[in-house]
Amino acid sequence: MNWLEQTAQQPCQTSRQQAEGRQQQLTKPPGSLGQLEAITIQLAGLQQNSIPKIDTIAISIFAGDHGIAAENVSAFPQAVTGEMIRNFAGGGAAIAVLAKQLNAQLRVCNLGTVSQLETINGVESELLGPGTANFSQQAAMTEEQLKKALTVGKQHADGAKTKAADIFIGGEMGIANTTSAAALACALLQQPASVLSGAGTGLNAESQLHKQKVITQALIAHSLNNSTQPLNCLRLVGGFEIAALVGAYIRCAQIGIPLLIDGFITSVAALTALRIRPDIHPWLILGHHSSEAGHSTVIKALGLQPLLDLQMRLGEGSGAACAIPLLQLACALHQQMATFESAKVSGKK
Amino acid sequence: MNWLEQTAQQPCQTSRQQAEGRQQQLTKPPGSLGQLEAITIQLAGLQQNSIPKIDTIAISIFAGDHGIAAENVSAFPQAVTGEMIRNFAGGGAAIAVLAKQLNAQLRVCNLGTVSQLETINGVESELLGPGTANFSQQAAMTEEQLKKALTVGKQHADGAKTKAADIFIGGEMGIANTTSAAALACALLQQPASVLSGAGTGLNAESQLHKQKVITQALIAHSLNNSTQPLNCLRLVGGFEIAALVGAYIRCAQIGIPLLIDGFITSVAALTALRIRPDIHPWLILGHHSSEAGHSTVIKALGLQPLLDLQMRLGEGSGAACAIPLLQLACALHQQMATFESAKVSGKK
Repeated sequence: MNWLEQTAQQPCQTSRQQAEGRQQQLTKPPGSLGQLEAITIQLAGLQQNSIPKIDTIAISIFAGDHGIAAENVSAFPQAVTGEMIRNFAGGGAAIAVLAKQLNAQLRVCNLGTVSQLETINGVESELLGPGTANFSQQAAMTEEQLKKALTVGKQHADGAKTKAADIFIGGEMGIANTTSAAALACALLQQPASVLSGAGTGLNAESQLHKQKVITQALIAHSLNNSTQPLNCLRLVGGFEIAALVGAYIRCAQIGIPLLIDGFITSVAALTALRIRPDIHPWLILGHHSSEAGHSTVIKALGLQPLLDLQMRLGEGSGAACAIPLLQLACALHQQMATFESAKVSGKK
Repeated sequence: MNWLEQTAQQPCQTSRQQAEGRQQQLTKPPGSLGQLEAITIQLAGLQQNSIPKIDTIAISIFAGDHGIAAENVSAFPQAVTGEMIRNFAGGGAAIAVLAKQLNAQLRVCNLGTVSQLETINGVESELLGPGTANFSQQAAMTEEQLKKALTVGKQHADGAKTKAADIFIGGEMGIANTTSAAALACALLQQPASVLSGAGTGLNAESQLHKQKVITQALIAHSLNNSTQPLNCLRLVGGFEIAALVGAYIRCAQIGIPLLIDGFITSVAALTALRIRPDIHPWLILGHHSSEAGHSTVIKALGLQPLLDLQMRLGEGSGAACAIPLLQLACALHQQMATFESAKVSGKK
């Protein structure tokens, strides 16, 4: 996995400064567009263009099953992972509807499910096995599976670059993957499961306590209560789709595509990517604050500010997709607003 | 002003319930779309349609000058009101850019400025005088001016209805109008100026204290420290554009157009409208939480939850306009997502 060692691109300071200067001249009180100004300036630096744009949107959904589902940590049966893969391709899933509305390029990638799926038009198969192993009993992934999953993510980033994507959204699907993501975050942040584990798709209070116990015991069994080595943590308690997201995020930063992170699971993937390559940080944009319990803690660790906070907790990249119009409006304002000079508007007293 | 006494329409409970039922069947964990679910259900009731839509968007910007500007309560010179009216019509102002991006119908209404404006293509003149009177010395408006301003707003709502608007956004422009709005909110809520007065377009700390003093003294002079009669408060310390917003909001609720409220000033207008006609409440949707200091208090009094919180403080309806894509995505998800049954996806265990 030599490619992981490649440095991330650096934002262009000149483009940033030009965008910052332009924002000061537009006909509005300075700073009055708030985060829309900040995000435009960030995008200008990342796209090396003082007038950034969000026209071409690449969305990749990575799906995979989790062996830990056997420990009864999800409110939904494991068959749903495969069923939802069909639903992504069929256009009925939330992210499929959003992608269509946003005229985004949607790729759906199956990394391995318990139920064997037929060939589905619009689904790419990169099968690494029938889901990960049950990490309460053994490592979730082999070294080989981890390497392959990271590489699948890398290939999606490279594909987005080929299509000249202005931004990349990674999404995920996998029954029990909040358990995997919470365990991973616990290890990376050395925080207890009670802080990072939540209701997922809708566990009741009792089941949430059981989920915390499963995570806590697994962390001890894998000696992750005193190890934060990110690739090791990812392999031991992560998931195929989480590893693919990590690979995609790192690669995007290496080849110069801004990343729009979704909710809890993608944020944990981003945190893992950041621990592997701290220099990817400038490329991270957080779409929304999820209502999944552990997200606030992960957001703080990422050092990011979400664009939306709508109490969403659906995954699939849906929260990030909902933030796309804000980026587009921010870019339109930046590009099209008049300056005090051009509109002959008086400045501050 | 007999029309103010007409009752607001009632949301359709059947459509609401149908929309609520549909949300439960869509392929996602129940509740996982958060506010997007709630807003869709609200819109279904308001539009009397279980599948609501936000296709036709009516935006009206009301502009007017404020006599209180003479007390040095704004960071910008008063000429800016007129200059920005030209900028709205010329397409260079933030709301003009946003309206174009959203394919919204934008009307610009000049209710009276200090600087006499030439005839401007795209600007409707409803001149009530060269701005309001300085409310630190006398009533801001005469009874006649108040009545006319409210009626102008009413006519904009009626116009939106004629064009079959799915939603109405009111915006405002007027140098010193955060002073007027803060004074109005102080009277309606019987709270001190220190709570409701903020930096506006960018006052420093010293000037903010001066602004608070101007408001406090005026409230006492008009005996508004112990009167909350909304039309009286509006006439004494309000503004032409604020009164027009009040008229527009009340009328929208009477004729059945959902309202998307913008920031601090429009929220104070909505609060005034709500105090005149409490039955308009179901029609109010709050676009965003502004960073203007008093907005949180007014939001609490309105009993609303904002869709966005991006530290914006520009006015012109810009924050509300930025929330439009969220409503559109919410409606698209509601309409186009598959159900568990149609997509053959398993439900909760």
